[in-house]
Amino acid sequence: MNGADALCETLLAGGIDVCFANPGTSEMHFVAALDRQPRMRCVLGLFEGVVTGMADGYARMAERPAATLLHLGPGLANGLANLHNARRARSPMVNVVGDHATYHRAHDAPLHSDIESLARPMSHWIGWAETPDSVSQTAADAIAAARTPPGRIATLVLPADAAWGETAAPLAAAPPPAAAPAVGREAIAAAAQALRGKGALLLLGGAVLRGPALDCAGRIAAATGARLMAQQSNARIERGAGRVPVSRVPYVVEHALAALAGVGTLILVGAKAPVAFFAYPGKPGTLAPPEARILTLAEPGEDGAGALAALAEELGVAAGLDPGRAGLARPAPPTGALTPEAVALAVAALMPEHAVICDESVSSGRDFFRHTATAPPHDFLQITGGAIGCGPPLATGAAIACPGRKVIALQADGSALYTAQALWTQARESLDVTTIIFSNRRYAILYGELKNVGAGDPGRNARRMLDLDDPPIGWVRLAEGFGVPATRVEDADALVRALAAALAGRGPHLIEAVL
Amino acid sequence: MNGADALCETLLAGGIDVCFANPGTSEMHFVAALDRQPRMRCVLGLFEGVVTGMADGYARMAERPAATLLHLGPGLANGLANLHNARRARSPMVNVVGDHATYHRAHDAPLHSDIESLARPMSHWIGWAETPDSVSQTAADAIAAARTPPGRIATLVLPADAAWGETAAPLAAAPPPAAAPAVGREAIAAAAQALRGKGALLLLGGAVLRGPALDCAGRIAAATGARLMAQQSNARIERGAGRVPVSRVPYVVEHALAALAGVGTLILVGAKAPVAFFAYPGKPGTLAPPEARILTLAEPGEDGAGALAALAEELGVAAGLDPGRAGLARPAPPTGALTPEAVALAVAALMPEHAVICDESVSSGRDFFRHTATAPPHDFLQITGGAIGCGPPLATGAAIACPGRKVIALQADGSALYTAQALWTQARESLDVTTIIFSNRRYAILYGELKNVGAGDPGRNARRMLDLDDPPIGWVRLAEGFGVPATRVEDADALVRALAAALAGRGPHLIEAVL
Repeated sequence: MNGADALCETLLAGGIDVCFANPGTSEMHFVAALDRQPRMRCVLGLFEGVVTGMADGYARMAERPAATLLHLGPGLANGLANLHNARRARSPMVNVVGDHATYHRAHDAPLHSDIESLARPMSHWIGWAETPDSVSQTAADAIAAARTPPGRIATLVLPADAAWGETAAPLAAAPPPAAAPAVGREAIAAAAQALRGKGALLLLGGAVLRGPALDCAGRIAAATGARLMAQQSNARIERGAGRVPVSRVPYVVEHALAALAGVGTLILVGAKAPVAFFAYPGKPGTLAPPEARILTLAEPGEDGAGALAALAEELGVAAGLDPGRAGLARPAPPTGALTPEAVALAVAALMPEHAVICDESVSSGRDFFRHTATAPPHDFLQITGGAIGCGPPLATGAAIACPGRKVIALQADGSALYTAQALWTQARESLDVTTIIFSNRRYAILYGELKNVGAGDPGRNARRMLDLDDPPIGWVRLAEGFGVPATRVEDADALVRALAAALAGRGPHLIEAVL
Repeated sequence: MNGADALCETLLAGGIDVCFANPGTSEMHFVAALDRQPRMRCVLGLFEGVVTGMADGYARMAERPAATLLHLGPGLANGLANLHNARRARSPMVNVVGDHATYHRAHDAPLHSDIESLARPMSHWIGWAETPDSVSQTAADAIAAARTPPGRIATLVLPADAAWGETAAPLAAAPPPAAAPAVGREAIAAAAQALRGKGALLLLGGAVLRGPALDCAGRIAAATGARLMAQQSNARIERGAGRVPVSRVPYVVEHALAALAGVGTLILVGAKAPVAFFAYPGKPGTLAPPEARILTLAEPGEDGAGALAALAEELGVAAGLDPGRAGLARPAPPTGALTPEAVALAVAALMPEHAVICDESVSSGRDFFRHTATAPPHDFLQITGGAIGCGPPLATGAAIACPGRKVIALQADGSALYTAQALWTQARESLDVTTIIFSNRRYAILYGELKNVGAGDPGRNARRMLDLDDPPIGWVRLAEGFGVPATRVEDADALVRALAAALAGRGPHLIEAVL
């Protein structure tokens, strides 16, 4: 076998059987090797930002890494923004970046660039498979790195001659996924002591926003009177009926300060202490009250679920205590004008059980969260790193991971235009994704921010940079161009009809909600 | 004024009056400052790869830098692939990358990343405007860096607090554009000596592919019997009737070896010694015959035009000697089947004088060059760095630079899908661009490369990564979704009609040529 075959074998043996790809010439031997491995599912993205975003969505739902295949430095560069989001989401991922043959690098051929410098900011681990004999071990190391809790971005550079050269080296095996290290007794005792007092808030991030850990956090809160909150941006939250409801730290600085006012002790469970998304003149950068004590119960890579269980035990919280799970209560479908709130109500009214909601609605989606606290149980995935263009590929990758579940993408128009090519992959793979475009024809969030900086009424240059209305994007045509059926709606009643139809069917559909 | 105002003033004083932009919150003070400066033309790209690609196309035609405005590390990352192409094209450019306020960086807010590591591989110069008082001088330095011959990528990081803070520091002025340094006498004498012998080839790159320099190269070749050739990838060539025709080093290794066979001395004039675009098992990486001597007459940053003039004088070449300019001869418009060659013939038959041809046709466009040697005079711009997705924004930026000229984009379908959003900017700015999509519904070049690696007939996984036919892209709908009228043609006669109509009108148009 050659190095490329060794890579395929090692990936498959390590449980990686999906490869999101946009290959080029230097990756052709790997493509040929993938072609000899029908167990590997190869999913093409028309642009590398789609490729890495799909791998992020896949990892969030499958809870294991996919591979990506990227073409040299520029291909990696195109994928970086969604790698940034994936890194913030702590998604495991193994990127295979093809490189020129080792001896060809010295020629500075047109596609040559400094891959290490490009990869480093968005990768936790970088490895170079410089010879055919080292490919398998490097790949096993990459898998191990990706699986390191809470999830890491591993980037493996595969020079073309390492891919095409023959190897008789034994295949290496990635070690089994490592368990997250347990939290020490001192941290648990300190958190327990804080929770015996007043004004404690458990700030949750990562895996404790799901399953028994979330229930346990709910019981601790119920028993102690502590508040529960999630970070502002979260990779995945289980919510809706039957789940313990958690609010999130608001995006707007003033709202966040208000939400955290009165907190005496902030107890971090897989979360970071909250900071402002952006700096503003005269506003604070950290959001907890200055006098609040900040305790870490569990770092993001530690066993937060185990720590919560130990904490509940330490506090003597009864296992049968009601954690305060949400009941099921849907709103009536909205009628009348089409507003962001009407979209939230329509989704809350119509979403099926166990839908996967991918939210890149930016300013338009702020009503969604509260209207769906008692919706049917669902997973809620967000843009985590602020690099827009996350949503369409995130939904695509989530749908690959969850073939039996309906994926609903709540999508700001400006952000969707970064990676609208993902619609084509949805069509090609017949994925069950309903995308709702919040078509307000502007970077709406930036109008608010421009006002925040005291710039007065926007003039021509500002409008030329913030408006998307001249010409308006024809979302129905765009979606159809990518092979996805689409509907345009201008009032809430039409939205409800279109959404009901899309959710009743299978396969991709796009609804342009003209706001 | 604040730091953002100082930046605007310094850019304008330095002759930069076009800003290609996709701003975010951290850039709002700069947006507000641009809004106070109607002399600055702000052009929105829906994605940063469009933004940097437009600035590249603009610089190639305007021969001066534009500014770009990019949002933090991820916004820069999205623009890197086309910065890579621009760097290879030696296009001058000043990128303004907004950053968090200096004191906010320590908080590792969601959009924080290592901007320096991201910027370094594609930037010749990086500067940090860390305080309001230092913004103007840093901007002046950036302009000077960008204008350094032959053209450089300058990246200026602008923290939000440097933008919003007040400054009374005097405005700095960029020095006037520096002349390219003259070539030493030894290099001219050595080249002259080589040209007095046999088997010399002048390999041209950069500005000597235009104007009097190209004429001069033609006279030297005519007087000495030397051959003329351009690099494989070139930022801009003046060609067609009235210009000295130059062939290019072929892309395919075997063709390049054949084209360069028999060369005794390769004389580089603003060019690099030719290397293979990719490495292949058993094929050489350098393309000149191993026994050929390689002389450098002028480095890319040196005064190649002056060097050629001095060389002509040294050789006693008569100023009135016929440099071998091409005559005007158009082919008949093609009829019958629609092939890549038919597209080339149709463009050659119909293109107006002084068109700007932007070529990212990849494998489909290889017939174009020879069929247009005697077409009306035109500029020919290519993808230079191999990072696909260059073409649509390149054409857009070129059209901004040349409002009176018809821009014709020859565009491979797979590559166009990287940055199709540029069509929207063409519609918004009413740019006179006719785009012809070579719609072969596959990454055709990769089929050839897969065959080259001996992979046999492609199977399911290879086809899933190389084909774009399931579903086919609906280019007419896609273009219309972006506000650009479009036509689909399936035979040469229909192409000729559609192209004639598009060229007769003004404004953007897209033709899907189904191959």
